[in-house]
Amino acid sequence: MAHQMCMVCLDDFENFAAKHLNKKAFDYYRSGANQEQTLRENIEAFRRLKLRPRFLRNVSCRDLSTTILGQPISFPVGVAPTAMQKMAHPDGEVATARAAAAVGTVMTLSTIATSSIEEVAEANPNGLRWFQLYIYRDRKVTEELVRRAEKAEYRALVLTVDTPVFGLRLADARNKFSLPRHLRMANFEKLDIKSNRVQEAEKESGLNEYAASLFDPSITWKDLSWLKRITKLPLVVKGILTAEDAMLALEHGASAILVSNHGARQLDGVPASVEVLPEIVQAVYGRCEIYLDGGVRTGTDVLKALALGARAVFVGRPLLWGLAYNGEQGAIQVLQILKKELDLAMALAGCCRISDITSALVVKSTFYSKL
Amino acid sequence: MAHQMCMVCLDDFENFAAKHLNKKAFDYYRSGANQEQTLRENIEAFRRLKLRPRFLRNVSCRDLSTTILGQPISFPVGVAPTAMQKMAHPDGEVATARAAAAVGTVMTLSTIATSSIEEVAEANPNGLRWFQLYIYRDRKVTEELVRRAEKAEYRALVLTVDTPVFGLRLADARNKFSLPRHLRMANFEKLDIKSNRVQEAEKESGLNEYAASLFDPSITWKDLSWLKRITKLPLVVKGILTAEDAMLALEHGASAILVSNHGARQLDGVPASVEVLPEIVQAVYGRCEIYLDGGVRTGTDVLKALALGARAVFVGRPLLWGLAYNGEQGAIQVLQILKKELDLAMALAGCCRISDITSALVVKSTFYSKL
Amino acid sequence: MAHQMCMVCLDDFENFAAKHLNKKAFDYYRSGANQEQTLRENIEAFRRLKLRPRFLRNVSCRDLSTTILGQPISFPVGVAPTAMQKMAHPDGEVATARAAAAVGTVMTLSTIATSSIEEVAEANPNGLRWFQLYIYRDRKVTEELVRRAEKAEYRALVLTVDTPVFGLRLADARNKFSLPRHLRMANFEKLDIKSNRVQEAEKESGLNEYAASLFDPSITWKDLSWLKRITKLPLVVKGILTAEDAMLALEHGASAILVSNHGARQLDGVPASVEVLPEIVQAVYGRCEIYLDGGVRTGTDVLKALALGARAVFVGRPLLWGLAYNGEQGAIQVLQILKKELDLAMALAGCCRISDITSALVVKSTFYSKL
Amino acid sequence: MAHQMCMVCLDDFENFAAKHLNKKAFDYYRSGANQEQTLRENIEAFRRLKLRPRFLRNVSCRDLSTTILGQPISFPVGVAPTAMQKMAHPDGEVATARAAAAVGTVMTLSTIATSSIEEVAEANPNGLRWFQLYIYRDRKVTEELVRRAEKAEYRALVLTVDTPVFGLRLADARNKFSLPRHLRMANFEKLDIKSNRVQEAEKESGLNEYAASLFDPSITWKDLSWLKRITKLPLVVKGILTAEDAMLALEHGASAILVSNHGARQLDGVPASVEVLPEIVQAVYGRCEIYLDGGVRTGTDVLKALALGARAVFVGRPLLWGLAYNGEQGAIQVLQILKKELDLAMALAGCCRISDITSALVVKSTFYSKL
Ligand SMILES: Cc1cc2nc3c(=O)[nH]c(=O)nc-3n(C[C@H](O)[C@H](O)[C@H](O)COP(=O)(O)O)c2cc1C
Ligand SMILES: Cc1cc2nc3c(=O)[nH]c(=O)nc-3n(C[C@H](O)[C@H](O)[C@H](O)COP(=O)(O)O)c2cc1C
Ligand SMILES: Cc1cc2nc3c(=O)[nH]c(=O)nc-3n(C[C@H](O)[C@H](O)[C@H](O)COP(=O)(O)O)c2cc1C
Ligand SMILES: Cc1cc2nc3c(=O)[nH]c(=O)nc-3n(C[C@H](O)[C@H](O)[C@H](O)COP(=O)(O)O)c2cc1C
Repeated sequence: MAHQMCMVCLDDFENFAAKHLNKKAFDYYRSGANQEQTLRENIEAFRRLKLRPRFLRNVSCRDLSTTILGQPISFPVGVAPTAMQKMAHPDGEVATARAAAAVGTVMTLSTIATSSIEEVAEANPNGLRWFQLYIYRDRKVTEELVRRAEKAEYRALVLTVDTPVFGLRLADARNKFSLPRHLRMANFEKLDIKSNRVQEAEKESGLNEYAASLFDPSITWKDLSWLKRITKLPLVVKGILTAEDAMLALEHGASAILVSNHGARQLDGVPASVEVLPEIVQAVYGRCEIYLDGGVRTGTDVLKALALGARAVFVGRPLLWGLAYNGEQGAIQVLQILKKELDLAMALAGCCRISDITSALVVKSTFYSKL
Repeated sequence: MAHQMCMVCLDDFENFAAKHLNKKAFDYYRSGANQEQTLRENIEAFRRLKLRPRFLRNVSCRDLSTTILGQPISFPVGVAPTAMQKMAHPDGEVATARAAAAVGTVMTLSTIATSSIEEVAEANPNGLRWFQLYIYRDRKVTEELVRRAEKAEYRALVLTVDTPVFGLRLADARNKFSLPRHLRMANFEKLDIKSNRVQEAEKESGLNEYAASLFDPSITWKDLSWLKRITKLPLVVKGILTAEDAMLALEHGASAILVSNHGARQLDGVPASVEVLPEIVQAVYGRCEIYLDGGVRTGTDVLKALALGARAVFVGRPLLWGLAYNGEQGAIQVLQILKKELDLAMALAGCCRISDITSALVVKSTFYSKL
Repeated sequence: MAHQMCMVCLDDFENFAAKHLNKKAFDYYRSGANQEQTLRENIEAFRRLKLRPRFLRNVSCRDLSTTILGQPISFPVGVAPTAMQKMAHPDGEVATARAAAAVGTVMTLSTIATSSIEEVAEANPNGLRWFQLYIYRDRKVTEELVRRAEKAEYRALVLTVDTPVFGLRLADARNKFSLPRHLRMANFEKLDIKSNRVQEAEKESGLNEYAASLFDPSITWKDLSWLKRITKLPLVVKGILTAEDAMLALEHGASAILVSNHGARQLDGVPASVEVLPEIVQAVYGRCEIYLDGGVRTGTDVLKALALGARAVFVGRPLLWGLAYNGEQGAIQVLQILKKELDLAMALAGCCRISDITSALVVKSTFYSKL
Repeated sequence: MAHQMCMVCLDDFENFAAKHLNKKAFDYYRSGANQEQTLRENIEAFRRLKLRPRFLRNVSCRDLSTTILGQPISFPVGVAPTAMQKMAHPDGEVATARAAAAVGTVMTLSTIATSSIEEVAEANPNGLRWFQLYIYRDRKVTEELVRRAEKAEYRALVLTVDTPVFGLRLADARNKFSLPRHLRMANFEKLDIKSNRVQEAEKESGLNEYAASLFDPSITWKDLSWLKRITKLPLVVKGILTAEDAMLALEHGASAILVSNHGARQLDGVPASVEVLPEIVQAVYGRCEIYLDGGVRTGTDVLKALALGARAVFVGRPLLWGLAYNGEQGAIQVLQILKKELDLAMALAGCCRISDITSALVVKSTFYSKL
């Protein structure tokens, strides 16, 4: 699927995917929950933030590198976990992992990936890998996943807390979405058919049935403590949207919080993740690392999130569009564009290092209406 | 009119009705007053409310049941009174009543229904029924309606206070709307032709002439007291839009207040009902039940209204679209979708019971611009 | 030009005119200055005002009558002065005057009308007439106009202060607008050709050249005093947009202030007239009557303006669309629709008399975002 | 390229250029950086400012003249430096310079112009000329430019501080923009090919490569001091967007500050320049002159900027559209339209002299929502 188009920004990749991916897959990737209010907000909320660039600061040498949980990455943008990437490209998660390694950042593998924990580790032996965890009703399944992630040298567990059940994405319901027959939930290959397939449901999306029957909606903060007990891997709590839950995450031993609304795919009507970032930054007050995902599409989006206090951001869909465009190479291109855009944005804003990006760099657009 | 389409949200039913109902009926059902500013606002105001979901709360068992005026309902969404439902489907109000009973919620029958008080009661013997009252110039007509509702075991009277005359809906005026010849205002079968027919008017809508000649525009709060005297049925005052009127309703013995702008069909330019809900909740301060209708289209809309203090919400047009789609079955589908959406929204917001839905769950979107 | 269409609101008349008037005339009537920011605002600002209706108030008898400058009118909507009405219909201002009389309200005749002061007086002998004054460089011309208005029993002079020169309306410039050859500025029939014709200009609109050469841009508040000296007619100062100028108008003897931005035809970028109304009402503090024009299109617009403190409102363009539709009858229809809409709006808001319309009836939409 | 169209406002010239310029050139001129958020904002922010006009002030004689850095100009609108004007018209910067002189205002020549410092000076011997400076890695190149500007009697140096590297304009990247082969960076004719050509880049815009290889991204406020040392010409610091940088500019000897976001071509997501103007005016507190560019398209835009404290404004793209329309004559037309619009706006706002334009004339639109 290599192409000779002129891809100059991330939206070009989405447009490509819209034209070339099969509809079921594209819809699954693109959709937000219900009326997609939050999906639009994730993009628009960034537009309401305004940058206050500073000049004449010698920006000849920029250094975009930073660390997350102590591990170095070449720039503060990681790959968010997204399910079933082989629908975008036969190489799926393996391609994504290689792309992340190629540009020097972290790849987060989803529990419900179409490539297994081990395959991805092999494909990306030196890259930084995190494993995203959904907790299954059968705790042995969960524990087994943790063990395999440890063994395959994933460096953190990303516990997604916003998904006791799956949100309703209308297009998937209309399409009666299911995982194409030739694909498997690769982390469950050896398990029963129930957990390694997403079958066609009678009504709505097969994925909703999958999650409803397998995920455990009864988990509480105590399960975080349980996880902490069974593994030494640092825990990133993904999906926090309130200061209150951020405090609870801290109390229960989270090493980091990933502010996220799951790409607007769970509860429609929640604010953009970047809108809630400030209240969480304020509550956490430096006691753990804070990341953000949702709607990051340009270098200036990254700059804004960092200025508001995120240590790094993650991107979900753009990688899928990159895969759809050209597998590993496409995914690399996506990450490189973001990196270059961030580099340029930093230069134009007067920042040489990530630590130069402070809260003085960003204001809400309402700031100016008060002047 | 049964169909094999994929109906995944309430808007699908409206789209179906737009295509399949005859224009006069569809326009009558859909329209708001004048420029339809408020009609749009009823939808948009919900979009400006943002949910603050909480996670890791064990949402494995959800219970959506609640009570209204002491009567149990299976979920906090009732059927608002809408006139002349037989234009949507030959079974009209009878189908709606059966649908409400089927999903375990209340059906409110309009005074100007095309099925009579008794027909609806027979069709829905075990269901919870309320009767919506317009006060006719001839008080004996009104009293007779009350007696019949009592006898047929309706459990509350819903006095609509926002309709001394009917609002002006432009499409009806253009269409010279009248009730199709084969239909009757069924509650007035035995009365004179004037009250059981909506005849074609020379100019504008026949319904406006109907209301102008029959409804009593001179009623005041004293008539509420009169009603209280002549019946033991609890009184729900429907159409309140200010804290001031809410206080008066309380003073005059209302058992509940239904915050409503009549689906934006009366005075154009009034706020969305959900916008005024907070000032009324504050004024009433728990002294009576408060409901809301207007623009409720999704489970998250229900969640937002409840978080702002409504005990239950009502839906009007969606039931008409359900009828148009497939009579009783269509109406059931509409209610079930809402129920399922609310159930899902509660799970995703960390709520297991209706009582878990508190004001902490919702903020105005301006909340975030101040952070 | 009588028609059998269904005209149910004022916009229907504009749509008719857009299709049937010749382009030069329609453009001249419709346009606002430059980018038409204010033209849009005049409409949108009304939408941002929300009504707080009160119920159960016995609205069986409504009385819309009021007085302006002591003269009774049947409802608080007058006819604003608009120039050259014969382009809309051969009967021009005469038809408008008869229409105003027919519905019992005031007609304001423009200085640059295509029917003369005397013709209009004759056509509308018992109607209330006001005369709008532009001050010409030649003060004798101005004084002569005042004398003729006095003699023809016009009851007030409306001094337009926002037009030292004409604003730039792009469409007129493109069309090289001029008064059609068969028409005359009827108040200057006996004068030189310069003042009774609007000739084709080489560039832009002939009207701009007309005003530039004839109107006096040097007038100041002293000229108001001069006017007060030469006539006993009460002075309405038209075009005030700030509290500061309202105070000056009061000091210089204005009997009334007409808050107006000249239908958005002068300085583009000024606020909607209804936006500035509150600051002027506050400053004037009841010391003179305050009217408003600009963007009034529905009964609820009237209600809002009155609730904010206007004693009456005026409408400009809608009368032109009425004329275009059907001369005097069309103009009557326009006024009757507004009257009926206001009557209905009052009933639905709980107001029986104009004095029932108080500031409690209206809030800005931001009111609710603060609750 | 002379034409007989009816050009009545600046947008007409852009529309003409959109149709008649070759796509690469038009895109280069029109584009803003990345998603063009700021490009839209530059226009919209003016719309959010509202004028408060005053009347009856004798506006018969208007005088639009003012001074900048002590030099008289006929109206407070200057020509901003824009690169490579020969793509718009063969006469390029020479035509622009003549146009500026013809209407009596300042022309700012870009470092990367297609006409040289000397050519422009010759073409416009009596006009006021400023020279815009980019600092090249090779300081001798820079110093040489300064010397030539001094010798050719340019009256100020405009140091652009917002361009350590060029921003990313997507259309240029797609078009692989380069300077057409027959054109040269005329100020570098005698230098190496690297600095006088913009060659086709392999990826993206050749201009970005040009700037990256030649401009010095390491410059700091010290280089301002260095410039001050090597020349007596007053320094205008162009591109300031924060009060903080305005203070630094003052400290380092700036004679004037040009508030600008480079026509939204550098860092996307910065506020409109007119949004930041107030904070800079406040910080500078009269200690140096302040100008503004970005999105000025009408006379009322000029009025608003001046009311907020700018001494003059500059326009970039409109001159390019004027050139494209009709070379020098087109550029003159553009400036004359702006002048006439400003003259009219002043008359309609009650201002006779530039000094009559005070902060009382303008408010944010939010001003009225608080009344
Ligand atoms: C197609 C798709 C699948 C996803 N699958 C998962 C998943 O398996 N686990 C998870 O925690 N998040 C999942 N997410 C959420 C992402 O991790 C991330 O929060 C989101 O995509 C960020 O928003 P963005 O797509 O706007 O960058 C998924 C998102 C998408 C779009
Ligand atoms: C077609 C139609 C007919 C209605 N008839 C009545 C009625 O007879 N009595 C009444 O109190 N309200 C009536 N209403 C108002 C509804 O009870 C309810 O307030 C409104 O429909 C709620 O808004 P929604 O349609 O957006 O859900 C009617 C509404 C519609 C749309
Ligand atoms: C075509 C036209 C001509 C006008 N001519 C005059 C005039 O001669 N004198 C005057 O004071 N105002 C004139 N006006 C302004 C009106 O009196 C009034 O302020 C304005 O039309 C009110 O806004 P509306 O058209 O939105 O109702 C004119 C307005 C229009 C639209
Ligand atoms: C095509 C183009 C080229 C430009 N070239 C330069 C330049 O060489 N140097 C500079 O300081 N600014 C340059 N600018 C920025 C302008 O000086 C000015 O800041 C901007 O155009 C003002 O915005 P406006 O185009 O909306 O009026 C350029 C702008 C444009 C549109």
